[in-house]
Amino acid sequence: MDELESGSRDIAGPIPAAAVDGGLGSAPIAEYLAERLWAHGVRHVFGRPGPFAAEAQARLAEAGHELVATASAGAVGVAADAYARMRGLGAVCVPYGADALRLLDAAARAYAERCPVVFIAGAPGSTDHERHPLATSGGAVRADARSVQHQAFAAVTVASARLDDLSVACREIERVLEAALAHKRPVYLELPHDLVDAVGPVLPLPRPVEAASSPPALAAALAEAAAMVAAAERPVIVLGVEVQRFGLQDHVLRLMAATGAPVAVTLLGKSVIGEAQPAFLGVYAGAGSRPDVRDAVEGSDCLLLLGAVTADLNPGGAPPRLDPARCVDATGDRLAIGYHRYERVRLSDFVAGLAATPAARRARPPQADGSPDRRRVIPQPGAADEPLGLAGLVAHLAAFLSDEIVVIVDPGAALLPAAELPIGLCSEFMAPASYGAAGFALSASLGVGLAEPELRPLVLVEAAELVAGPGELATAARLGLAPIVVALNPAPTDGGYRPDAHRLPELFGTGWGAEVATGADLDRALAQAARRTDVPCVIDVRLPGAATGH
Amino acid sequence: MDELESGSRDIAGPIPAAAVDGGLGSAPIAEYLAERLWAHGVRHVFGRPGPFAAEAQARLAEAGHELVATASAGAVGVAADAYARMRGLGAVCVPYGADALRLLDAAARAYAERCPVVFIAGAPGSTDHERHPLATSGGAVRADARSVQHQAFAAVTVASARLDDLSVACREIERVLEAALAHKRPVYLELPHDLVDAVGPVLPLPRPVEAASSPPALAAALAEAAAMVAAAERPVIVLGVEVQRFGLQDHVLRLMAATGAPVAVTLLGKSVIGEAQPAFLGVYAGAGSRPDVRDAVEGSDCLLLLGAVTADLNPGGAPPRLDPARCVDATGDRLAIGYHRYERVRLSDFVAGLAATPAARRARPPQADGSPDRRRVIPQPGAADEPLGLAGLVAHLAAFLSDEIVVIVDPGAALLPAAELPIGLCSEFMAPASYGAAGFALSASLGVGLAEPELRPLVLVEAAELVAGPGELATAARLGLAPIVVALNPAPTDGGYRPDAHRLPELFGTGWGAEVATGADLDRALAQAARRTDVPCVIDVRLPGAATGH
Repeated sequence: MDELESGSRDIAGPIPAAAVDGGLGSAPIAEYLAERLWAHGVRHVFGRPGPFAAEAQARLAEAGHELVATASAGAVGVAADAYARMRGLGAVCVPYGADALRLLDAAARAYAERCPVVFIAGAPGSTDHERHPLATSGGAVRADARSVQHQAFAAVTVASARLDDLSVACREIERVLEAALAHKRPVYLELPHDLVDAVGPVLPLPRPVEAASSPPALAAALAEAAAMVAAAERPVIVLGVEVQRFGLQDHVLRLMAATGAPVAVTLLGKSVIGEAQPAFLGVYAGAGSRPDVRDAVEGSDCLLLLGAVTADLNPGGAPPRLDPARCVDATGDRLAIGYHRYERVRLSDFVAGLAATPAARRARPPQADGSPDRRRVIPQPGAADEPLGLAGLVAHLAAFLSDEIVVIVDPGAALLPAAELPIGLCSEFMAPASYGAAGFALSASLGVGLAEPELRPLVLVEAAELVAGPGELATAARLGLAPIVVALNPAPTDGGYRPDAHRLPELFGTGWGAEVATGADLDRALAQAARRTDVPCVIDVRLPGAATGH
Repeated sequence: MDELESGSRDIAGPIPAAAVDGGLGSAPIAEYLAERLWAHGVRHVFGRPGPFAAEAQARLAEAGHELVATASAGAVGVAADAYARMRGLGAVCVPYGADALRLLDAAARAYAERCPVVFIAGAPGSTDHERHPLATSGGAVRADARSVQHQAFAAVTVASARLDDLSVACREIERVLEAALAHKRPVYLELPHDLVDAVGPVLPLPRPVEAASSPPALAAALAEAAAMVAAAERPVIVLGVEVQRFGLQDHVLRLMAATGAPVAVTLLGKSVIGEAQPAFLGVYAGAGSRPDVRDAVEGSDCLLLLGAVTADLNPGGAPPRLDPARCVDATGDRLAIGYHRYERVRLSDFVAGLAATPAARRARPPQADGSPDRRRVIPQPGAADEPLGLAGLVAHLAAFLSDEIVVIVDPGAALLPAAELPIGLCSEFMAPASYGAAGFALSASLGVGLAEPELRPLVLVEAAELVAGPGELATAARLGLAPIVVALNPAPTDGGYRPDAHRLPELFGTGWGAEVATGADLDRALAQAARRTDVPCVIDVRLPGAATGH
């Protein structure tokens, strides 16, 4: 993960001076939280108005954060997740109750796909439930209401706190934010609305959130893994999403050079390394992989799985056919070499150490990497005036990609074909994997557009899903964002309707739309969309049928 | 709650013979679950396809249930909630992971507003996580993944179980369904996909889920409450949603006759009794109430709050100004008389007992009930060719209501004006209260339409919300349902867009739409919609501005 110029990434960094009340070392809670988020690179906080959130949202805005409202409650979490994928940390600040609980699936996705998102809920005040025995907190669902929402979030976050004890509130903020950054996972903070301006002491954390590697355990793991690599005939490296989240790209490139092994990426890991190099195999997605990639990975006698979390390896729901005896499986949570589990070995130490271990350097050149049949299969466009299929669509999109494009893909029909888009040509590829839910891509484009304004999101979605929930098109227009939304619109097979997705901009009174059926149409529409940098653009791609396009 | 002709409401009812394997007394788990749902009146189960759900959904369909898919994941929970409000029990069967977690806010709403909904999640099999150490279950977010989703649902349900122990699975189904019916609250069942056909013994529950009242506690509570009523100058009854959920209408009518006290209802409780009677005051919604209703309720010296849950009394987030010293607060969860709390007194026993207690019968006639100024204020339409405001809209809708209409209202601008609709003229009024989230009403119309096909839903929503998530219009059309969707479309005040909500049917290629601005327009459109009983109808009501219409 790149350092942001604007803020320190040092999780044990100094307390910001502005938040500290002179020599007393104390700060108002909400202001402290706002400044710590700012120090970690957050500039936009996603949220919507509602019960108990106004006070916290006001303090965030006063500290300089832009508060971004979405059309739907669920888009808040997805936008912040995408923002975190781009900038290293994302944040939401939402009302108590329905709006917050609506984000639990986003929190679970961020947990599974390792996105550090800070979920802040404005909450009933410490004495609200005492005003009247009938009136517990708004949105409360039980007599011990404050714990219900917290309890639900605790299940899908890596750390959480209710900030109602002033003596430790600032330290709790530190602890929870550091956990998000150390584990690259979501966290939850509940801020009572009547305590946002309460002042608490600023205390350092007693110890770092993440323990260092144990030197002997690390040495033993490196020795076993290096021996396994050295003995292998067909070693293969599979890179997962954590390579990006933990900023391990340089270590990985050194390890690739040392072992000479061919490299596949997972769907979530797509774009963690450039795809132009000869050792690049393609995307491994279990049964959904290209056959040559699947054969290479599943036929390997030494598979180095680096930073590939469960969601990475399980995109279709069916577990991949990988023999654990032949796997080195290293993630932020665990290290397994064959059937041996190691404790207290950090992923970054392990990857860096393996790259530097002489035994892992292979005496003979790796087989077949760099040979043409192992190289990336770049899709070729068909005849320009033929009806487009899925493969043709991907080919035309590939020709359109540039360094200024971020590709964002919904789960569904487009995901696996889109995985073949050559990412050397665009700056980023973003898709949810096994934890996918439709509606991700359009909402995610909001977070991406705000996090990286100089990049343009190209959003791949199914037309039926887009038309069922197009609200964030209006949000994008309001925010001055201009995603290019490519809607896959197959002919209905069951007598169903075929929605006019390209007319959505017209319905909303903003944006630009076009209907296309051939490659030539699509190229023209993409060129037009490229010039319309001021508004959301919808390209409605009529495909011959759900099953025939690929 | 009315007995359904089609099934037994007896929660301790006999085990269905068809599910029992002859003399052995055993049944396949999923078939047993399907039959028990059927016995409790469920005919439609809401869900969408996805990981681990196919097997359970197939067994439900084979048992005769109609499986109903919605356009969005969230609508599943709302539709089942509305179905439960109409029929006494609702059910969903959804995939593991994102789709299920997406329903946690629906579960929380059902918990807060007392709707018995059975949330069934297809789940990873008992051995799926062992196939490969990397591949835990699909959608899993932790090593102990199976407990995460279960844990989150446990926070917002009244009972839950994972059906992986065959020896008690059928009894767990009984326990959980009985808890839903006894408490009128949601429950959660997790069904491993490889165990749907596994056979387990059918065992009776050792004891009833809900304990009976303690006779001396009941007697003490009745004596104190009756004395309070007898001594009061201005007693008022406030009826909440539990009156409908627990089927207490007859008891309540007897109590009204005995005390002669004027009666208000909460928003959730609107339509629990007919509104034509002279003692009817109106809707009490805290600060959102009509002033005369608020004065009567908050000025009462003996307030009988019957079945009014927290969500009932707290629709705006701010707690109502009710003095607990003057309240008898009886719900399914608690009984408080002044500052005295009673344990082991059932709501139904208390209400029935109070109606029959001579001391609660008031010697003098109640003040002012029946007097014209206390009577219902029926809104009157303005001139037919004037631009409509919110009040005029409500007046014209009131004139359109009939016994065949169910009014379903989203939270937001329309909710409090709609509360003035005279419900004596329509068969039901449905709206979420404090736990409201936009998007409720259209999704709820699916559940209502399937639960009560002879009734026509009239859905009141904000146009911006409708256009942001219109997908269930297509679902309604596919299901042959024909809601009349009235979209409130105020002039934008901040340079925003004004969506063409009436063009949604055109976009979807199904349905009928009209744009109206005056009372005459609206009457005409309603008359046309009344004739178009075959498709969803959208009436786009142009209002002069967000703040000026009321």
